[in-house]
Amino acid sequence: MGVTKRADAQRNIAAILAAATECLSRNPAASTSEIAKEAGVGRVTLYGHFPSRAELVDAVFVHAIEVGEQSLSQVGLTGDPREALARLVESSWHLVDRYAALLVAALDTLPPGRVRELHADPMARVEKLLERGRSEGVFRSDLPVSWLVSVMHNVMHGAAGEIQAGRLSSGEAAGYITATLLAAFTPPGERVT
Amino acid sequence: MGVTKRADAQRNIAAILAAATECLSRNPAASTSEIAKEAGVGRVTLYGHFPSRAELVDAVFVHAIEVGEQSLSQVGLTGDPREALARLVESSWHLVDRYAALLVAALDTLPPGRVRELHADPMARVEKLLERGRSEGVFRSDLPVSWLVSVMHNVMHGAAGEIQAGRLSSGEAAGYITATLLAAFTPPGERVT
Repeated sequence: MGVTKRADAQRNIAAILAAATECLSRNPAASTSEIAKEAGVGRVTLYGHFPSRAELVDAVFVHAIEVGEQSLSQVGLTGDPREALARLVESSWHLVDRYAALLVAALDTLPPGRVRELHADPMARVEKLLERGRSEGVFRSDLPVSWLVSVMHNVMHGAAGEIQAGRLSSGEAAGYITATLLAAFTPPGERVT
Repeated sequence: MGVTKRADAQRNIAAILAAATECLSRNPAASTSEIAKEAGVGRVTLYGHFPSRAELVDAVFVHAIEVGEQSLSQVGLTGDPREALARLVESSWHLVDRYAALLVAALDTLPPGRVRELHADPMARVEKLLERGRSEGVFRSDLPVSWLVSVMHNVMHGAAGEIQAGRLSSGEAAGYITATLLAAFTPPGERVT
């Protein structure tokens, strides 16, 4: 492939990913035809880069996670582990809220376990903070850290479902999630803050 | 329809539901052809009763919830609300665990919100117990009860996902869920038991 062709291909891929993010955020069931139209490319071009809708959804979700990682890597995680957890929940929640429709598309389209697999980096960050909080005695050590990480993942993603069902507002969610997790992670015998 | 034809139809429906429960529990992606074969009926007969795979999955899930309600309605919910919650989690978990593959099939197949909608009865039972615990001061009142119910729902269904991913054993789950929820529901300022 020549330089120009390669540049064209990269431009098309970027346009398709941007259009797919846009379309799937409006409607998690958006079709590849809609996405190709929004990107200003033909369906043959789209399928040339993403042979199936699932591969496109996967690429869009991978990209969203990368964008999220750029923002999460800037959250300060030193100091009181409880306050660090509150900051991490706040930033993570903004991402989950922003990408809620993409999350629905990914859960509907990708194989079981894939969404969780793509969360490996954000979950490793949570795990590290929980480990530190456990060693300092402010988070519980009677349950495995992998379980505590999954509780955070499920409570946070569950909140996105509550918003879509109209039972929770986006502004309330971060506070509810933080209050719930700080209590859930409190060592038995200690007071909930 | 004569008496015999009606009896035949009822027998076929029962056979299809039993076969679908069996097949979907083995493989959440089981096809209607496999289910018809297992039920010993033709595909035309199956489609005569359940015009789409989604309608069949819905009927199977409705039936599983009914079976579950028979068992949950026998859980004693009087006395200490925390102990009552532990009993309810234990019984609910057996059902979630037993029907985990059906849950995956339902989440993959039914429209968003339908699985939660079908949990209205079990969730109303949880809500009632949480309300009583709040009025007795043993469960937190600073977050809406609808949020606490969703936390229980998401932590419990999340545990089913952890088991499928091989990160949790079925025997550990009820204890982990109970310990997590009792802490999460503890009023701020009080000690986690």
